[in-house]
Amino acid sequence: MSGTKVPGTKYITEEHVNVRSPGQYGRILLFGGSASGDLCTEIAEHLHMKCGNYTRSVFPNENIFIRLNESVRGQDVYLVQTMSSPMLHENIFELLIMVDTLKRDSAGRINVVVPYLSYARSDKKDQPRVGIAARLLANMIEVAGADRYITIDLHAGQIQGFFNIPGDVLTAFYLLGDYVAKKQIENLIVVSTDLGFAKKGRNWAETLGTPHAIIEKRRLANDSKSEALSVIGDVRDKNVLLVDDEVLTGGSIANAVQLVKEEGAQDVYLAFTHPLLAEKAVDRLAELPIKEIITTNTLPISAEKRAKLPNMTVLSIAPLLGEVIWRANQGRSVGELFNE
Amino acid sequence: MSGTKVPGTKYITEEHVNVRSPGQYGRILLFGGSASGDLCTEIAEHLHMKCGNYTRSVFPNENIFIRLNESVRGQDVYLVQTMSSPMLHENIFELLIMVDTLKRDSAGRINVVVPYLSYARSDKKDQPRVGIAARLLANMIEVAGADRYITIDLHAGQIQGFFNIPGDVLTAFYLLGDYVAKKQIENLIVVSTDLGFAKKGRNWAETLGTPHAIIEKRRLANDSKSEALSVIGDVRDKNVLLVDDEVLTGGSIANAVQLVKEEGAQDVYLAFTHPLLAEKAVDRLAELPIKEIITTNTLPISAEKRAKLPNMTVLSIAPLLGEVIWRANQGRSVGELFNE
Amino acid sequence: MSGTKVPGTKYITEEHVNVRSPGQYGRILLFGGSASGDLCTEIAEHLHMKCGNYTRSVFPNENIFIRLNESVRGQDVYLVQTMSSPMLHENIFELLIMVDTLKRDSAGRINVVVPYLSYARSDKKDQPRVGIAARLLANMIEVAGADRYITIDLHAGQIQGFFNIPGDVLTAFYLLGDYVAKKQIENLIVVSTDLGFAKKGRNWAETLGTPHAIIEKRRLANDSKSEALSVIGDVRDKNVLLVDDEVLTGGSIANAVQLVKEEGAQDVYLAFTHPLLAEKAVDRLAELPIKEIITTNTLPISAEKRAKLPNMTVLSIAPLLGEVIWRANQGRSVGELFNE
Amino acid sequence: MSGTKVPGTKYITEEHVNVRSPGQYGRILLFGGSASGDLCTEIAEHLHMKCGNYTRSVFPNENIFIRLNESVRGQDVYLVQTMSSPMLHENIFELLIMVDTLKRDSAGRINVVVPYLSYARSDKKDQPRVGIAARLLANMIEVAGADRYITIDLHAGQIQGFFNIPGDVLTAFYLLGDYVAKKQIENLIVVSTDLGFAKKGRNWAETLGTPHAIIEKRRLANDSKSEALSVIGDVRDKNVLLVDDEVLTGGSIANAVQLVKEEGAQDVYLAFTHPLLAEKAVDRLAELPIKEIITTNTLPISAEKRAKLPNMTVLSIAPLLGEVIWRANQGRSVGELFNE
Amino acid sequence: MSGTKVPGTKYITEEHVNVRSPGQYGRILLFGGSASGDLCTEIAEHLHMKCGNYTRSVFPNENIFIRLNESVRGQDVYLVQTMSSPMLHENIFELLIMVDTLKRDSAGRINVVVPYLSYARSDKKDQPRVGIAARLLANMIEVAGADRYITIDLHAGQIQGFFNIPGDVLTAFYLLGDYVAKKQIENLIVVSTDLGFAKKGRNWAETLGTPHAIIEKRRLANDSKSEALSVIGDVRDKNVLLVDDEVLTGGSIANAVQLVKEEGAQDVYLAFTHPLLAEKAVDRLAELPIKEIITTNTLPISAEKRAKLPNMTVLSIAPLLGEVIWRANQGRSVGELFNE
Amino acid sequence: MSGTKVPGTKYITEEHVNVRSPGQYGRILLFGGSASGDLCTEIAEHLHMKCGNYTRSVFPNENIFIRLNESVRGQDVYLVQTMSSPMLHENIFELLIMVDTLKRDSAGRINVVVPYLSYARSDKKDQPRVGIAARLLANMIEVAGADRYITIDLHAGQIQGFFNIPGDVLTAFYLLGDYVAKKQIENLIVVSTDLGFAKKGRNWAETLGTPHAIIEKRRLANDSKSEALSVIGDVRDKNVLLVDDEVLTGGSIANAVQLVKEEGAQDVYLAFTHPLLAEKAVDRLAELPIKEIITTNTLPISAEKRAKLPNMTVLSIAPLLGEVIWRANQGRSVGELFNE
Repeated sequence: MSGTKVPGTKYITEEHVNVRSPGQYGRILLFGGSASGDLCTEIAEHLHMKCGNYTRSVFPNENIFIRLNESVRGQDVYLVQTMSSPMLHENIFELLIMVDTLKRDSAGRINVVVPYLSYARSDKKDQPRVGIAARLLANMIEVAGADRYITIDLHAGQIQGFFNIPGDVLTAFYLLGDYVAKKQIENLIVVSTDLGFAKKGRNWAETLGTPHAIIEKRRLANDSKSEALSVIGDVRDKNVLLVDDEVLTGGSIANAVQLVKEEGAQDVYLAFTHPLLAEKAVDRLAELPIKEIITTNTLPISAEKRAKLPNMTVLSIAPLLGEVIWRANQGRSVGELFNE
Repeated sequence: MSGTKVPGTKYITEEHVNVRSPGQYGRILLFGGSASGDLCTEIAEHLHMKCGNYTRSVFPNENIFIRLNESVRGQDVYLVQTMSSPMLHENIFELLIMVDTLKRDSAGRINVVVPYLSYARSDKKDQPRVGIAARLLANMIEVAGADRYITIDLHAGQIQGFFNIPGDVLTAFYLLGDYVAKKQIENLIVVSTDLGFAKKGRNWAETLGTPHAIIEKRRLANDSKSEALSVIGDVRDKNVLLVDDEVLTGGSIANAVQLVKEEGAQDVYLAFTHPLLAEKAVDRLAELPIKEIITTNTLPISAEKRAKLPNMTVLSIAPLLGEVIWRANQGRSVGELFNE
Repeated sequence: MSGTKVPGTKYITEEHVNVRSPGQYGRILLFGGSASGDLCTEIAEHLHMKCGNYTRSVFPNENIFIRLNESVRGQDVYLVQTMSSPMLHENIFELLIMVDTLKRDSAGRINVVVPYLSYARSDKKDQPRVGIAARLLANMIEVAGADRYITIDLHAGQIQGFFNIPGDVLTAFYLLGDYVAKKQIENLIVVSTDLGFAKKGRNWAETLGTPHAIIEKRRLANDSKSEALSVIGDVRDKNVLLVDDEVLTGGSIANAVQLVKEEGAQDVYLAFTHPLLAEKAVDRLAELPIKEIITTNTLPISAEKRAKLPNMTVLSIAPLLGEVIWRANQGRSVGELFNE
Repeated sequence: MSGTKVPGTKYITEEHVNVRSPGQYGRILLFGGSASGDLCTEIAEHLHMKCGNYTRSVFPNENIFIRLNESVRGQDVYLVQTMSSPMLHENIFELLIMVDTLKRDSAGRINVVVPYLSYARSDKKDQPRVGIAARLLANMIEVAGADRYITIDLHAGQIQGFFNIPGDVLTAFYLLGDYVAKKQIENLIVVSTDLGFAKKGRNWAETLGTPHAIIEKRRLANDSKSEALSVIGDVRDKNVLLVDDEVLTGGSIANAVQLVKEEGAQDVYLAFTHPLLAEKAVDRLAELPIKEIITTNTLPISAEKRAKLPNMTVLSIAPLLGEVIWRANQGRSVGELFNE
Repeated sequence: MSGTKVPGTKYITEEHVNVRSPGQYGRILLFGGSASGDLCTEIAEHLHMKCGNYTRSVFPNENIFIRLNESVRGQDVYLVQTMSSPMLHENIFELLIMVDTLKRDSAGRINVVVPYLSYARSDKKDQPRVGIAARLLANMIEVAGADRYITIDLHAGQIQGFFNIPGDVLTAFYLLGDYVAKKQIENLIVVSTDLGFAKKGRNWAETLGTPHAIIEKRRLANDSKSEALSVIGDVRDKNVLLVDDEVLTGGSIANAVQLVKEEGAQDVYLAFTHPLLAEKAVDRLAELPIKEIITTNTLPISAEKRAKLPNMTVLSIAPLLGEVIWRANQGRSVGELFNE
Repeated sequence: MSGTKVPGTKYITEEHVNVRSPGQYGRILLFGGSASGDLCTEIAEHLHMKCGNYTRSVFPNENIFIRLNESVRGQDVYLVQTMSSPMLHENIFELLIMVDTLKRDSAGRINVVVPYLSYARSDKKDQPRVGIAARLLANMIEVAGADRYITIDLHAGQIQGFFNIPGDVLTAFYLLGDYVAKKQIENLIVVSTDLGFAKKGRNWAETLGTPHAIIEKRRLANDSKSEALSVIGDVRDKNVLLVDDEVLTGGSIANAVQLVKEEGAQDVYLAFTHPLLAEKAVDRLAELPIKEIITTNTLPISAEKRAKLPNMTVLSIAPLLGEVIWRANQGRSVGELFNE
């Protein structure tokens, strides 16, 4: 499981906050971008503070205008902005413009908190004449003036190496895993929905003490369009936990559910960190025989989408982020959390 | 008039092309981004070549994917992509991703051709706690890997200084000015629609040999919302040429037309380089008593909008860009065009 | 009015200083370059401290040698050096060498305080084959190692975008404007001496509640040498306040005074921030029928020059700079000053 | 299969060479570092030229001294140096020093050809308080002055994103795959030796038209030291082709062979790109019941090691590198090779 | 004597430590690389603290793996690692990897303490087509993420200028000089072993109040291999103190001793800062008629080597480094030490 | 002798020029800055071409304005500007502004030719709290946009390492040495005027086949102001050749001449590369009993100064620079000159 792990417990109390002193980077200031306003508020509650106030306008030529309504001079600013659809590129630009604004107002340190980092699948040249947009994105965040970044469950851990600035790459694995473990599902098998997730799937299986199967997708003959799926491993008569890092269209999930059902699986659960959930995905998932869908709020999910998926549980990453922000500001170890 | 001036004449002939040799930067390759496909085609015709072929997809998470279908190794690539609405930020990101793609395919030199550079009004901190998005944009273009840029009529000439890479900042002033001069309108006065355009308006007046008036906008008392307009100078019984660099909502233009009419002006003409033309603007302009609207194609104008404005003339900047691209590739002076 | 505004009142008291603690950037240390020794002393008085001690020698080959006589390790250093003539380039080099010296002595943070930034008119390529010296200067200041800059009334606000480091760009407008307002001159009109200053002139007029006229300069026909001046707007029987950002040779001012007088103006006042005042300028101004010249000490004015201009009032920017330095060190808002 | 693919055929003929003209980057010059002298010679033969001459000494304090014995001014230099043990860090430093030397002798373009890039497994922070050495290495290569890099089969394709300079990341997959295909082994199954290689293993299976199994390693209970292996998929009565990107100690291979044999496999073949082959590995492989070991010369293999492994076939990557170097110099597509 | 001078006295007491507060860079943390473990321990004792704990492994492919066992978030880290043989390049890489690791764990400030900086003789292009490895090394240290460096007696003071980050370049001259002075050797002459050390030799002579002679090496005629030595100055009947910055093979020293003896010198002493001491050097020095060899522990000397040289005195630089580290952290002057 | 050596013979003929083709960097263009106009003309003659045409103005505020009167697009520009007094800092700024101008006009490659690099004695921190101005200067030249530099006889060869861009550091040693050798002075001894020049003095002696003496300067006791000089080595009854790299005030030379005369020397000659020659120096040298002063034109010497020193011979470096420029443009070795 790539990244630093932080459990979902033992967070900051009022008492912690009272002993909080500015530290060498100044006081914590939180700002929530327009894609993460709710999440910012939730984090702020855990830190017994409020999100910073700013004005955001969009001109008829789509230009975004940001004006901070409070000074950030010499303070330790955490800017929370996930990279979600719709308006993905507006969200990214807003993030960058806010970083520039913080920099030019002489912030003491600028930390961008991006629960979901987009373009993570454009992380290598896997065919001729393509670019690496994820590295481009990292360069932009750096050139805008960010000093540090915090994110959750990168599609590939190597993306950390696209950044030259320090980062805390957290995982929702413990949050999700603890939740599943508490359900004490019998006769469970973890199924990775993709070969690229096989290693992380193995970690799920290892932690839950279950067997592991993997779904393999293969192009057929010379026809690059048609593909065949197969399960490597045996799921017959087992309860299946499908695991992945993100769900976008739900296509792979639909195939996986169908396949494991055909191969004789019993109940099917689904756990993943990032609920990208394109419109199509919600409809697909709603129709699938999945007992429970478990995910997090790294991306906002509209009330409408939630209504369509009554079997979906959304765990909050706000306590995790709040704790890490507090420790980052205080110069305290994040890793030490796990020795307790 | 800021920027290098190039007349609208004496462009490349078939013969020029035949003597074209690769030069130290390789052969000219043209690529048109999705906001400037038509313009690219038009430029390509002037250069007796075709625009490069590439695949562009957008995933359901809005991620843009670019794959070049021909090699750019060691060649002198000109990527034409204006920054227009709708989908402004997609357009900008597409530009940056294409630059990254060209770089990673070992292009010999990467020139971005951005007829209209957006965010140009976010060019200074004119109030506390705002950023300078235009500098951020320049940094992004550089960090993505562009070697040079070509653009037209920057809102403020100083934006050139936001770039550390060389650029050719052209002007459509000669194109527009020549067109107006040929109309031989009698008793003409140039009216700058804004104090910030006063210097360029003076240049219009100087070149056309007319007087000059300026419209001044002023906030009233302590109420920052209400503003008062006045004309500095005398327009009575004159034919008015309103000049500006861009028209977005048409609000200032509507006010200006009303004002000069109230002050006794006869016919009103309008000339500007960048037809941003938000929906509202088209409707407004359609209702105004303007005899002719003269602009260029630095930004695409939909057929529907054109239909609503039968009194609009759109001059093409493609010959100008084609000539400059050819000279840039050949290591020839752009300035010398004007000694002929 | 570009830049952050700070009023000329409510500055630091002895009490403020007593509660001053080092902060995360260390203690304030002030150093005055050889072009701003007096100004540094004046600022230091406002901060109840002394300017730092250093040795400066110039060798017979003109090489400047700087040795600090006190340690700056880990401290928040403010280096005050304006860019004035004579010896302009020595002054700039001295600034850069001092920044390098501070950096190599491990200063905690290096803030350059440049009341007047030179080369500000070389801020764009407004003709072919020229450079942009102001951007070059910004690059030099950054590459030498400055972390922040503070300056006053940039010729063009966009020059802020030439810097990638944060800056506080202040204005003397409030200082000058308050002074003029208190004079309660009747029947006043603000006259911008140049089209490029029209927007700022409008702000003067708006704030003082007066009308506004603008002087336009135009080249005649094909003869680029001869120019014609005219006033756009009506100054007859009014008292005129000529406003500009700087006065170098006084040529434009002389023309403006003559012109408004010819057009029937009564008393003439002159207000500007930067007294560059070449020798010629002093003589010219001395002969002009100006009732009062109001300026600041962003640049030193020799006693000899002052003697020749008994009608000149020089307002001090030291309290403004002192306050801003104190707030920058303490991580306090500069903008909040204005809510009081 | 990440990276650009180039087949092992259709290379440069004498005729190609005759038409070779310097191009915009100058003439091809080849230099072989001390870890890749033989490979350089082999590539040079394919290009009908000789490797460049230089002096290399090592002082008693281990300092490496490099002096080129021929000028590289304005030429297109390809420096071939793999990152092999023993003396890994000497090899890396030699590479960097040579790049610096080439840069300071004004080479036209510097391409580093690193068949095996070391430290590729330090590509992410997969536990707290570790670094990312592969990114550090990329930074060093860039800061030393390389303009481009060429390498083969990166452990993770994402490492391409650690570089900001363009690169050609080639693969030996076609070379190895063609060789295996020609053997026409019946009843074959591809077995990935590791979950992390599962996707590439799938590509092997897809191309050879065989089934695919995967070996999974899992830590046992709370004891992080002991691990259990299992095969996901069915290998009984099949001929097994174990595939991996590199073999270092041979431990995983030994386990894999034992496991597939226990599960009823018939003949076992082994294919991998990078023969790191620590001493222990050679002894282990020699004892295993592997019918044929197929690898390449991205790393030098001593004659002694070769003697111990008579069942090992070493395919040469020199024609592939030679072709790519030639095309890179000529500004020709590498991808187009595959359309023929 | 290039560099900051610090005497070997008046160091930190328990009391100093008790008043130590974190400061703006956080608390001092010391880490000792594998080439300087003992030195780190010695420095730590002077600072009444312990060296930081980390895990270091070397894989069979020689890759170095570092994992910190304690958090460095927001702290002021001093990483002590000299550049010594054997395993010089491993040592350098370990240094760089540790810096990267500290950076990615969000250290507050990273100071590398490199008592002996290697490659210092590759500091200029003194023949065509060589590089400047010392600048390359400086670039690497910066690109890895170091904020400051501390070193001792650079071979050429100019190497400071290879760094853009601040540094404290200390000297062991006072440590060695005080020791020699206390011996009160009569009729002493300082002899520089090399023309390049003549200026520093003069400083020795000046401080000890003795005459000065210099050994000159000259190539003979057209035969670049054979060289002739001579003493410039008169050493007859004098006691000789040979001085140099480092001793590697002892070849020059052996020649120097023989030469001054031939020229009639009495007792011979030898003082130098950096005991590189290749194996050969120890044997050579052991055989030479030197009364006392005086050096420091900037490089570790094995017990075996020490045993062979019973006439060698090794002075410790740990108190000097400890004091400087403490002052650097506290933002106190290092120079002021010398006014006491 | 640090730097690349080029003899004073075998330069470019008309025929060379005829075969000159543009090469990958474009055609050679020469521009002479205001401190090196004559030198540029002389170099241009050797290259059978003319110096480029540009306009230079200085405004009353001392701002320098440069406008190129011919295009440099895609060409290989050599900008010749030495760093001489008077107006040293103007000269440096003019150099930097011209580089910026060339860059922004899209020059193909920018080579600065700085025969004498100033601030070379500020090349290390040899006392606390000073900077390293020579590194600052190198940074400025790089940040302005220069691609390469060419200079002559750096005060310390290490200054090459202050640059990250490639450079050709030439020497006038062969030019001066050949001239002296042809004089066939009997019974000659080379005397280095300073310990810091001892190594280069040794090279002079080695090449001319003479003995070598060195002048040592030492501070007396505790009085840092008074110094004592002595000759190390024996000059009695010999003809002396004093050698140095530059002469500024002539103080050291005056002392040296007096000293060697006192010690019984016969005729005294003086050779040095850089004639800084402050006013005082000319008067001093004129009064000294020197038989011949031999120098070069790396710095301009006024006719008036030449008139005062009839015994001075000035050798021209123009042929050397012309040859190197031609070879740099053609991608030819500079070093190979010496194999002929």
